[in-house]
Amino acid sequence: MAITPRAAATLNERSSAHVVIIGGGFAGLATARGLADEDVRVTIVDQHNYHTFLPLLYQVATAGLEPADVAYPIRTIFGHADNVTFRHGRARAVDHGRRVVVLEDNTELAYDQLVLATGATANYFAIPGASQYAMPLYSLAHARHLRNRLLTELEAADVRQESGPGELNFVVVGGGPTGVETSGALAELIRIVVRRDGLDFGALTVRVILVDLTTRLLTSFPSSAASYARDQLADMGVEVQFGRSVVEVQPRAILFADGERLETAAVIWAAGVTVAGTLAPEAADRVGPNGRVVVAPDLRVTGRSDLWAVGDAAAVLSRGQLCAQLAPVAIQSGQHCARQILLLQRGGATTAFHYRDKGTMATIGRNAAVASLPLGVVIKGRLGWMAWLTLHLFYLIGFRNRLRVVINWTWRYFDWPSGPRLIVADAETVD
Amino acid sequence: MAITPRAAATLNERSSAHVVIIGGGFAGLATARGLADEDVRVTIVDQHNYHTFLPLLYQVATAGLEPADVAYPIRTIFGHADNVTFRHGRARAVDHGRRVVVLEDNTELAYDQLVLATGATANYFAIPGASQYAMPLYSLAHARHLRNRLLTELEAADVRQESGPGELNFVVVGGGPTGVETSGALAELIRIVVRRDGLDFGALTVRVILVDLTTRLLTSFPSSAASYARDQLADMGVEVQFGRSVVEVQPRAILFADGERLETAAVIWAAGVTVAGTLAPEAADRVGPNGRVVVAPDLRVTGRSDLWAVGDAAAVLSRGQLCAQLAPVAIQSGQHCARQILLLQRGGATTAFHYRDKGTMATIGRNAAVASLPLGVVIKGRLGWMAWLTLHLFYLIGFRNRLRVVINWTWRYFDWPSGPRLIVADAETVD
Repeated sequence: MAITPRAAATLNERSSAHVVIIGGGFAGLATARGLADEDVRVTIVDQHNYHTFLPLLYQVATAGLEPADVAYPIRTIFGHADNVTFRHGRARAVDHGRRVVVLEDNTELAYDQLVLATGATANYFAIPGASQYAMPLYSLAHARHLRNRLLTELEAADVRQESGPGELNFVVVGGGPTGVETSGALAELIRIVVRRDGLDFGALTVRVILVDLTTRLLTSFPSSAASYARDQLADMGVEVQFGRSVVEVQPRAILFADGERLETAAVIWAAGVTVAGTLAPEAADRVGPNGRVVVAPDLRVTGRSDLWAVGDAAAVLSRGQLCAQLAPVAIQSGQHCARQILLLQRGGATTAFHYRDKGTMATIGRNAAVASLPLGVVIKGRLGWMAWLTLHLFYLIGFRNRLRVVINWTWRYFDWPSGPRLIVADAETVD
Repeated sequence: MAITPRAAATLNERSSAHVVIIGGGFAGLATARGLADEDVRVTIVDQHNYHTFLPLLYQVATAGLEPADVAYPIRTIFGHADNVTFRHGRARAVDHGRRVVVLEDNTELAYDQLVLATGATANYFAIPGASQYAMPLYSLAHARHLRNRLLTELEAADVRQESGPGELNFVVVGGGPTGVETSGALAELIRIVVRRDGLDFGALTVRVILVDLTTRLLTSFPSSAASYARDQLADMGVEVQFGRSVVEVQPRAILFADGERLETAAVIWAAGVTVAGTLAPEAADRVGPNGRVVVAPDLRVTGRSDLWAVGDAAAVLSRGQLCAQLAPVAIQSGQHCARQILLLQRGGATTAFHYRDKGTMATIGRNAAVASLPLGVVIKGRLGWMAWLTLHLFYLIGFRNRLRVVINWTWRYFDWPSGPRLIVADAETVD
């Protein structure tokens, strides 16, 4: 089959500086967008050929959305920009002396400027069994794996209920936005499989338990938002337990510091993130809190002129304050990094990053969300929920994805049948 | 979380006869639909909790549709029918004496009437390496596996082209409807990743090769349809090779009887189906051609009063002729089986199955399809394609799935960006 090759030489003027961005999350994409159609060559390296919209991953895990609804091919995003290319692969190491990124297949990628946008992963706090048996939510594969577990356990409960009373416990660890959103969505999923799919739990008690070490939910939000979230979750049947310290996770149980051992169908890990163990802290020499790479105010890695760190991987400072690991920080730091690279290119001097806080949001369920805006303003309930919907649709990439998400949400809102409640095995033997 | 249990006793009147249907494909669903809201209890057993619309599976494999677009939860289909339940599991054996189906978890399911609707699987004709290295298309897991392979190989080619000329060969084995549709869709996928995603194959030659043992495509269609399909495929860049006998499949190569060894990025197996090795031939004692279960004209397994076989698993006869293993035969035989069970229930006598041939179709690409109707009528081109679209949307289950498929097809038709070209790993290590 004859494929007309692109005239590669005309697209990439070899004289332009080459910016390599490791990571296609919010921070990496924002950096690349800031450099699109400028006089640099850009290569985004990612182990996935798509960008994942992490804020909606919990909806994929709870069968409200499909994987393709929250992911978008990176190549397609930059299809219009001739100076941006994509390299499918995983970066293994950085050789600063030779200015090359070494990929896992041992190929090398030479750079003039290198941007570390590798993000963060689940923090298990070295709790025994947590990394093996608890289920995190940081990739599409995680989400699909968790969805399969949830649906399979619910199916099995329909069979098991015939043998008498018992408990089916789903435990969510961590009362931040991810934990609140996931436990709310899980309670909704259970309601739907009973009402719409006719699953019968008989004498089984199905519990969704949200545990946290502290004494309140959503510690980054004002306390009125936290108590609202707690009331809403209670209405949906989620048990919220505070002051609970997890000491071990086993294949089908969780152990607490007070000695309680709870049988579990799944433990969902939303207890926090870390950068430790990923490429970024290794590639940079100095790491700060939580493994985050120490950067100068202009986002360059301290002591380097050609190395940048943005998003969750970096200890981003704004007016001397350490920024939280949030999507808006990732986006704004990526945008800033791109501007600095172009400034340097034109012989200018770099400027310091300033974070513009536009607020944070979390949704609990249908018609129930909280938004914490600057100046202590809190929006709750249906209005907060509408704001949450609108904002997430706005930031989601691609008109088709938006359309599909609107369709899925409309279906679920009106409680119409179907929905992607499919248990598609991770791997399957061919029979 | 308190879940209100359904009043199970009122739903399933234990006095009614219990019909167990093994398999939730076209035949099993048609049987269950015919028995819904009648005075029998029905249990559908399937290893998947969803029905798969097999005729569109090749579009999932070639990144035109998402898994959820062509699958529908079986529980949701029968949510309205109180007498139909679903059992998630895999049947391992049938004990005719005790009238029980034994599942893989060793639980047993007692039946009064048993319907074998287990379908067919890929036939590898004992060709060495075929079952290990060739990729079939009979489940969502197969489709996702193949899609990941195709997209990963195309990404790798974008990197590999830097080291000079070479070949990237995709071989489709079998010139029936599945082979024709898959090779056409694959050629379209390659065109899209080059045009929309900017993949650059440089000096690499990308070939899609459709091989068949015979001397024409679509042997079940009139010859005018076959030559039309061949011309269309040629226009799309697919090389069609006849008289090619595969003697071995290796991890990255295919060997032919004439001694040629071709390096391959993927071998797609569309060479035919068999029932051998599945539950049905074991559960029935007598098997006919291709492992299909021998049935009486009323679809009862010869010599049994409480055992039926329908769809691809059965050697269905119509007016003394063996029916092909096609979706319409599966649906009509399921419907017939349901009617017979109800007739017997009411003390009547069973009747013979008669297949009403409404024609067969295959699509090659945009605006190009062939439909072979009764009386030798052939519809080709855009009209055939419109008919193909309409019919498939009509048979697809669920309004939402139809809506999503229309959106996806519209996108691809107008060559808009995105599409589900995501490489979501089958299994992924948590990092």
